[in-house]
Amino acid sequence: MDGIVYGKNSVLEALNAGNREINKILISKNIHTDSKISKIKELAQQKGIVFQFVGREKFQPYEEFNHQGVIAQISPIEYVDIDDFIEDKSAKEGYSSVVVLDGIEDAHNLGAIIRTCVCAGVDGIIIPSHRNTQVNSTVDKISQGAVNLIPIIKVNSLINAIQKLKDNNWWIIATDASANDNYYDVKYHDMNYALIMGAEHAGVSKSLLKASDFVVKIPMQNNFNSLNVSNATSAILFEALRQKLIFNRKK
Amino acid sequence: MDGIVYGKNSVLEALNAGNREINKILISKNIHTDSKISKIKELAQQKGIVFQFVGREKFQPYEEFNHQGVIAQISPIEYVDIDDFIEDKSAKEGYSSVVVLDGIEDAHNLGAIIRTCVCAGVDGIIIPSHRNTQVNSTVDKISQGAVNLIPIIKVNSLINAIQKLKDNNWWIIATDASANDNYYDVKYHDMNYALIMGAEHAGVSKSLLKASDFVVKIPMQNNFNSLNVSNATSAILFEALRQKLIFNRKK
Repeated sequence: MDGIVYGKNSVLEALNAGNREINKILISKNIHTDSKISKIKELAQQKGIVFQFVGREKFQPYEEFNHQGVIAQISPIEYVDIDDFIEDKSAKEGYSSVVVLDGIEDAHNLGAIIRTCVCAGVDGIIIPSHRNTQVNSTVDKISQGAVNLIPIIKVNSLINAIQKLKDNNWWIIATDASANDNYYDVKYHDMNYALIMGAEHAGVSKSLLKASDFVVKIPMQNNFNSLNVSNATSAILFEALRQKLIFNRKK
Repeated sequence: MDGIVYGKNSVLEALNAGNREINKILISKNIHTDSKISKIKELAQQKGIVFQFVGREKFQPYEEFNHQGVIAQISPIEYVDIDDFIEDKSAKEGYSSVVVLDGIEDAHNLGAIIRTCVCAGVDGIIIPSHRNTQVNSTVDKISQGAVNLIPIIKVNSLINAIQKLKDNNWWIIATDASANDNYYDVKYHDMNYALIMGAEHAGVSKSLLKASDFVVKIPMQNNFNSLNVSNATSAILFEALRQKLIFNRKK
């Protein structure tokens, strides 16, 4: 379902971020007012957003969602244009990073990856307009509202996006189980990098692997080559962050 | 639901692991026979396990599960005794590691953590018998059958388990958002370690923090202190593995 954000944390993050138009917030009469609900009311009042206490029947259309008694009617997230993103990052001092998702099918994985990207300080996320779960309200909820805190770039062609990044002095890193190099052998702190993570079953497409500067693997133990894609993304992004923080400490 | 394992990968892993008694495997008549289904049939035949092709109605009790048309009726996982685990690891050459889960509530998180532990080469997982999601068939499915590949130790008291580990030359590392040290400042390759991960909201209990030798944090960017617990576990365990593999390479 589009046009709503549900759950206390997601609604709170949407209010805090302030980059999407919130039409109305519905709060169930039947829930206990805790500190998060109070904060939602306070922020809505500050920003002049209508909030209504409503009966159980108003939540019926949303019963499939784990809404915790709070729903915001909201404008869809605004996807960022790839050219604007590259221009913006080129103007910035220091290096930038972006995660490219090649056909993630599961909304839980997409939400968890977006959340991890924000925690690890990644500058943007590129998704294809086809073959990928889009950023719907489930993804918003799983991300705990992180979708409002990071540019999400939707492109018609991932290979064209990769080419544009390369033309602008970005290095491309793809992950593949049969790679020779380990992910921690890359020096992430010393370049603009795009990290391509593949679909749950198919992995990164051949054309994208071919266009990449580095192809790396996560070394798997116990012959169990089945790490969840959000956990794989986390391992690599926090290694990149570790390198950056240690490099800055040494300076 | 206990007593079943569902989904192609989970049933395949249970057959491969061979450590749980499989009573019967049900395969839906309506699904396409792919390479995984063929492998399930082949392994079941080798091991003398009954498999039946059944109509849709037999799957009705399981319709809430994403079973992919395959269900195995199976004995519950056998939890490992903490004393046996410690004795076993003490007899082994080299260092060992274990992840201690302090009250994980979400079956998806528990399954993802078990899967990550197997991929990262952790030697065991300790869960409390209360206040933690138990290893049911959803956890089994999410773990992609990884529950069969790692000792899972259930204890009545986490603090007693920690004390036993300490008495046997293990070092205890707990995670806490307000810690001073970063997780990558610990030298994991040079000791037996237990990594304590806290519940989704409450974090690691005070008594366990107090009993720990190291308390570490994952440095969070963007003031967004909301990394999912399975992604946090992944970041730390793969850092530990990285250190070990690099240390071994240098030897």
